[in-house]
Amino acid sequence: MTQAFSFSVLATDGLARQGEIHTPRGAIRTPAFMPVGTAATVKAMFVEDVRAAGADILLGNVYHLMLRPGAERIARLGGLHEFMRWPYPILTDSGGFQVMSLAKLRKLDESGVTFQSHIDGSRHHLSPERSMEIQDLLGSDIQMQLDECVRLPCSESEAERAMRLSLRWAERSRKAFRERPGRAVFGIVQGGESKRLRIESAQALAGMEFHGIAVGGLAVGEPQDVMLDMLETTAPHLPESKPRYLMGVGAPDDIIQAVARGIDMFDCVMPTRAGRHGLAYTRHGRVTLRNARHADDPRPLDEASSCPAARDYSRAYLHHLVKAGEILGMMLLTQANVAYYQELMAGLRAAIGAGRLADFIAETRANWIEGESAL
Amino acid sequence: MTQAFSFSVLATDGLARQGEIHTPRGAIRTPAFMPVGTAATVKAMFVEDVRAAGADILLGNVYHLMLRPGAERIARLGGLHEFMRWPYPILTDSGGFQVMSLAKLRKLDESGVTFQSHIDGSRHHLSPERSMEIQDLLGSDIQMQLDECVRLPCSESEAERAMRLSLRWAERSRKAFRERPGRAVFGIVQGGESKRLRIESAQALAGMEFHGIAVGGLAVGEPQDVMLDMLETTAPHLPESKPRYLMGVGAPDDIIQAVARGIDMFDCVMPTRAGRHGLAYTRHGRVTLRNARHADDPRPLDEASSCPAARDYSRAYLHHLVKAGEILGMMLLTQANVAYYQELMAGLRAAIGAGRLADFIAETRANWIEGESAL
Repeated sequence: MTQAFSFSVLATDGLARQGEIHTPRGAIRTPAFMPVGTAATVKAMFVEDVRAAGADILLGNVYHLMLRPGAERIARLGGLHEFMRWPYPILTDSGGFQVMSLAKLRKLDESGVTFQSHIDGSRHHLSPERSMEIQDLLGSDIQMQLDECVRLPCSESEAERAMRLSLRWAERSRKAFRERPGRAVFGIVQGGESKRLRIESAQALAGMEFHGIAVGGLAVGEPQDVMLDMLETTAPHLPESKPRYLMGVGAPDDIIQAVARGIDMFDCVMPTRAGRHGLAYTRHGRVTLRNARHADDPRPLDEASSCPAARDYSRAYLHHLVKAGEILGMMLLTQANVAYYQELMAGLRAAIGAGRLADFIAETRANWIEGESAL
Repeated sequence: MTQAFSFSVLATDGLARQGEIHTPRGAIRTPAFMPVGTAATVKAMFVEDVRAAGADILLGNVYHLMLRPGAERIARLGGLHEFMRWPYPILTDSGGFQVMSLAKLRKLDESGVTFQSHIDGSRHHLSPERSMEIQDLLGSDIQMQLDECVRLPCSESEAERAMRLSLRWAERSRKAFRERPGRAVFGIVQGGESKRLRIESAQALAGMEFHGIAVGGLAVGEPQDVMLDMLETTAPHLPESKPRYLMGVGAPDDIIQAVARGIDMFDCVMPTRAGRHGLAYTRHGRVTLRNARHADDPRPLDEASSCPAARDYSRAYLHHLVKAGEILGMMLLTQANVAYYQELMAGLRAAIGAGRLADFIAETRANWIEGESAL
């Protein structure tokens, strides 16, 4: 079945939007949270359980996959969906962000970025054209332009240089994008902490034929109010008709705030990474399972959850598994966290649909606070 | 529902027996392989998947559980079955073997063994009486006497001293065993590599009121022919009417050989440990997934397996996960191995029932060899 990529806004509540992205591999209900499947696996989870948790789409990392097992190899094996057995939509990043944070001896110029693999020291070159080629080889449903993401804080001139380079790379990425039925490519807004640069970047990208626009270069260490200020500045300049994706965000409260400012898509390693480190996200707030107060607690993380890991296992057992360094502890907490994030997104979607987002946010936060103190 | 513990031999083929152990928590089809759930978890597996793989019974380790989270704590939380969410039969070892292999500063005398925890250095005393108390607190369905297991090779006099101590501990363990409906306690044959001692130990235990007899002190480094020689010597002196359990065994071929010599029950960390180290056991033999020859192989481990991990994922993907150190690789290979062991046991049971054990063993071995060379 061949279908086009499309996005429908079904309801709004203030700036918040509830909608649906249609792809040949299935629908993505927005606001959407994408679990991160870095190296062709959502760490410590069976892919069936990622789906059962409610995820419509996963994120894959070009940087990791190009280095191991290699994009050409994945293409020979039938593409990333087939390789990792996830038949639903996949968004891939461009690789640029992780080249900057993980690779050794990187060197950036107009053409792209040259770097050494953090795995084996091998040399690689990533250009807008190569990034799009890799994302095509992977079979990604939503592909991202290559951009340069600067660390915050940085000078305005440095932010401007990177933003302008990212715009030139946006044009090259868009041109290099392989048009295939139902596949999309997104541009990325940069501009550091400068409203002027953010607006210019958003306006320039709005004029290009992208299927969606991401906001990049946030959640890189700045305070939440700076991030929200940049979102408020940027969002009015993004096309109403296209999905908006805030990259790398975030904590549940960051997500809630960004949804209220018109963001439709999110990704973050937080739920999976926290799950591997003994931390659970729940309706009742965060639970640090390593804490001794859980050692004799027969209660589950959340008796009302639809996730077996959160509903069926005692905190005493989870505490034991975490203390003993058992893999099952990571498996259960990752599953619980991914499920909680999906439950939060479902709640946000329903609230926007019902025109009661502000109430939902207030209730959700009250639950977190009550829970933390009651735990 | 209150039921007695009982064992029925349903068919024999030579010395091999196919049967069923009945417990209030469910039936155990024999010959049975018990996956090891050391610290209240079969490492890297959801307990539902252990069941789905075909396991009727798990093994829990007293040494690990008494140190963390503690037997009294597990009892307060409703027992080991409730704690780890496995409602089917559980066999617990006595703790003695792991005190000898894992604990620090251990000191053994007639009363029992004093040792320091390998986790936090805390001091503990394990006597036959305390071991039975712990196993009762855990709620174990099949409990094991405390014994002393010597390393092989050892002198006959050392083997004799340990065997006689184990017999005295057998009497104390039997006496300390808490009689509860449907619960059982097994004695353990010792005697090192001495036929005389093995026979004496077996005969003495046969005269005590145990519900089953284990053969201990094998699979501790001796060649397979020594182990089989000891089994052939011991088995004729074990009661026909009681289950026979070969502790800590083993590799698939060891299991096959021991079944042919009349053994009914097995446990071993091999399938789970191998799964965490990139090694798969399959109908086609062992597969070392780390090997580069699997990098582009789209075939599953075994397309005819009923286990999703063995049937649905490409060797290329498993290779990638193992190379990348991904937890999912451990999860999938552990599941595949536990399932293969259960499939092997099911095959052995069917073959004994059909009076074709020798043919089954020949076919199984031929498959392993063909597979290894064809891989």
